Amino acid sequence: MNDIKFCKTIEQWCVWEVAVNGKKEGNPYVDFNIFGEFVSKSETKKVEGFYDGDGIYRIRFMPSYIEEYQFNIIGSAIDTTYKGAFVVTKAQNGNHGKVKVANQFHFAYEDGTPYYSIGTTCYAWIHQSEKLQSKTLQALSKSPFNKIRFCIFPKHYWFNYKDPIQFPYEGTPVNIENMTPDNFKDYDYSDENQFDCTKFVPEFFRSIEKQLQNLMDMSIEADIIIFHPYDRWRFSYMTPEENDLYLHYIVARFAAYRNVWWSLANEFDLMQNRTIEEWEHYGNTIKNIDPYDHLRSIHNWRTFYDHTKDWITHCSIQRTDYFKPVELSDQWRSQYQKPVVIDELCYEGNIYGDWGNITGEDMVRRFWQSVCRGCYAGHGETFENPEGILWWSHGGDLHGESAPRLEFLLQIMNEIPGHGLKLRTPSKFGTTAILQEDDDEHPSFLLCYFDRTRPMRKPFYIDDETEYQIELIDTWDMTITDMGTGKGKFEVPMPGKTYMAIRLTAKIEK
Amino acid sequence: MNDIKFCKTIEQWCVWEVAVNGKKEGNPYVDFNIFGEFVSKSETKKVEGFYDGDGIYRIRFMPSYIEEYQFNIIGSAIDTTYKGAFVVTKAQNGNHGKVKVANQFHFAYEDGTPYYSIGTTCYAWIHQSEKLQSKTLQALSKSPFNKIRFCIFPKHYWFNYKDPIQFPYEGTPVNIENMTPDNFKDYDYSDENQFDCTKFVPEFFRSIEKQLQNLMDMSIEADIIIFHPYDRWRFSYMTPEENDLYLHYIVARFAAYRNVWWSLANEFDLMQNRTIEEWEHYGNTIKNIDPYDHLRSIHNWRTFYDHTKDWITHCSIQRTDYFKPVELSDQWRSQYQKPVVIDELCYEGNIYGDWGNITGEDMVRRFWQSVCRGCYAGHGETFENPEGILWWSHGGDLHGESAPRLEFLLQIMNEIPGHGLKLRTPSKFGTTAILQEDDDEHPSFLLCYFDRTRPMRKPFYIDDETEYQIELIDTWDMTITDMGTGKGKFEVPMPGKTYMAIRLTAKIEK
Repeated sequence: MNDIKFCKTIEQWCVWEVAVNGKKEGNPYVDFNIFGEFVSKSETKKVEGFYDGDGIYRIRFMPSYIEEYQFNIIGSAIDTTYKGAFVVTKAQNGNHGKVKVANQFHFAYEDGTPYYSIGTTCYAWIHQSEKLQSKTLQALSKSPFNKIRFCIFPKHYWFNYKDPIQFPYEGTPVNIENMTPDNFKDYDYSDENQFDCTKFVPEFFRSIEKQLQNLMDMSIEADIIIFHPYDRWRFSYMTPEENDLYLHYIVARFAAYRNVWWSLANEFDLMQNRTIEEWEHYGNTIKNIDPYDHLRSIHNWRTFYDHTKDWITHCSIQRTDYFKPVELSDQWRSQYQKPVVIDELCYEGNIYGDWGNITGEDMVRRFWQSVCRGCYAGHGETFENPEGILWWSHGGDLHGESAPRLEFLLQIMNEIPGHGLKLRTPSKFGTTAILQEDDDEHPSFLLCYFDRTRPMRKPFYIDDETEYQIELIDTWDMTITDMGTGKGKFEVPMPGKTYMAIRLTAKIEK
Repeated sequence: MNDIKFCKTIEQWCVWEVAVNGKKEGNPYVDFNIFGEFVSKSETKKVEGFYDGDGIYRIRFMPSYIEEYQFNIIGSAIDTTYKGAFVVTKAQNGNHGKVKVANQFHFAYEDGTPYYSIGTTCYAWIHQSEKLQSKTLQALSKSPFNKIRFCIFPKHYWFNYKDPIQFPYEGTPVNIENMTPDNFKDYDYSDENQFDCTKFVPEFFRSIEKQLQNLMDMSIEADIIIFHPYDRWRFSYMTPEENDLYLHYIVARFAAYRNVWWSLANEFDLMQNRTIEEWEHYGNTIKNIDPYDHLRSIHNWRTFYDHTKDWITHCSIQRTDYFKPVELSDQWRSQYQKPVVIDELCYEGNIYGDWGNITGEDMVRRFWQSVCRGCYAGHGETFENPEGILWWSHGGDLHGESAPRLEFLLQIMNEIPGHGLKLRTPSKFGTTAILQEDDDEHPSFLLCYFDRTRPMRKPFYIDDETEYQIELIDTWDMTITDMGTGKGKFEVPMPGKTYMAIRLTAKIEK
């Protein structure tokens, strides 16, 4: 048993790993396979392993039960079958398992704890220097963000024309001195095989895994963008076979991290070389090969994907209407009958693109509008920066004003006396959320958001029977004021300020 | 000639009047008629006169030419024909004639001076005490507003449950002590004839005329609302014959005031007792009997009227989309191919109805969005007030922050080097207006409004040939900063603030 190393004990929903020596002739990424078969009292799973270079193959597994597991390691990469066993221990503080869809339009961790998503976006943070990556983690640790979207492939776009610190495939990029928005078209595309997209660079993927683990330790979900169009290295033009190989490789490496979500693409409709049939194939591939059924979505540019497709667990949406960036979210919820996450609703910042220069007030407003419509939203920051470090692309420090207010919103969400909200119909009091399980006529809880209006008072009438605890919420100054109780027709005095909310909680003996 | 009094000389586009004694038996409002026939070198007009009580009939006429006019007074109200002549003198300072549609989507005075509408609304100001009416005029005199919307009939609505100081018809209203939003339904409707809607009260109309004259002297257009649904006195339920009588009476009395616009209804679709056929009849009646073809419109609640109708000179619109209150205005312009005035886009204030609690910033923003889409907008104020005086209903004082900024906007509009704007397609730089006569590719003038975005700089590229004078406009702080010139690709540094605009004026020898 010299050729196999594995953990004898592992915490539930953590990454169990076994390493074995195997064949390294030819191209092991393509020529050989390896699998792990796992059996406990409650589950049986077969998972794919991966070649990690230097003749080493690894199989990763995320156990869901506090039981003893037996395993076999098999495959063409090895000439024998390895067997073993390990024991799973109870999840510790902060480990609630992976996030899944719950209550149809919402999310919960595996252990039932509601997960209220307050996401952010740092597309290329894993392609930055280690120092900058550490800074990003530090900023995240002080932030409300419990989900982060980022790309596997490096990004070629505004403010981000540098090569990444390393590449996912063997090869050398054609170099251009001082890449600018203007000269990147001079890039030499003549040698389309400058990267060998059948030969992964394990170190590249290890550095991602290190950050998956760091994020996991901070209870932050990793919304991994598998494909994207902002590319000068032709990774968006790989062959179907190369794409399949890539999907198998990242699932084998990453899926055992409980905080993984699969975002099949960012702005899929900008990748005009792909057909819907191809997207369907890749989406279904992920669904079929991921042993843990992690959340899966696909993000649009101008045209929504058909989010009713079976492989899609929730809608990941970029706003397409400039003036109703999130105000249509409840309609999307009704249309697709799935959770809605508006992952891109413009970024807080001051760059010249109008998708990247909204105020902190507007960012917070968009979150509240989404949340009160029973949906979720995503943050990002694009402030001009003398060092060229923009959160939305590189990570680094947070500069905006929205993050503390989003933390306050998260607190409000966590205090909901149920699991998830929906828009009341008719809304009646600003944008009115009630509990997912409430009925519109006699809700037990109302969260009324008044957005940019600024009434001096608001009259309420819900029904004659229910007595409500009334709280006035200043969503910007982050205060909650007890306003006593109300029953039947009552009026709530307000300060005539924008961005206020009123929370009404039925005083019912439960 | 004892029985006839008239002006021997009159300024062009002012109110010439003749008074004659006539029959007063029976109901002179119904039983007799009277007309004036006017002939000058350039025009021939027959206009209807009206009974003004006490046996006196009046005919009013607005002459359009600096010529000598001959007139005959005829009709069943008198047993003879009166003849006479008068001389028209040149229009003096501030008198540019009536406003008409010009350049298809815009307005100009009779003498060709562009009229850029910055309207406001005080629905019931003429029903308030004389003291309050004077206060309103004083506030208007210090304001940018060059149009005011108001109702002829008294108004029964939120914050306005008092009887008017006088009524348009003979009769006495049923009194209710302390009218409230709740008890008004106790109003006694059993006697539907409490007012005799065939017998006008001349004093009521004289008081309106006094204000028409005052407004005219201040160069403010009077957008007179003929019908409206906010009624407890049954004026909205008059018979078709009574309505026709009313239309003839107000046209005979008011049409000679050059600043009159006819707003056939406010929220016509709330008057559910009326059919479209009836509205068409009333609209066409006004068109047919008004000798001067004053501007005519009809204002909606939830459903737009078909503004393509021939009798409608321009679209008077209440926003129906909460999140795109004015951002659809260029679409309405295209749809109806007429000038668009968004007369109701919510009011600056702090009352509990969300149509009446937007901020000054939002009011100004909505104006700029409208203007940069080649349209016009209307202001109003609804601030809670200890004395119960709200500008939008009663007039009084202005309390908001938008008025000075609208004055600044009016200055910007008056500086346009052409007549009227249109939205550039594609807009490219925020919401980009160009001159109505410009072409999208090579505009000679651009007004780029950045609304709630806040870029630190904005790159421009219009064409290679044109050199533009660049000015940075702070629409809230009301500053205009010279930023030099630009040609081809150029970038304008900006302060990273919301509500900025950039004005580009081609440096062309004309």
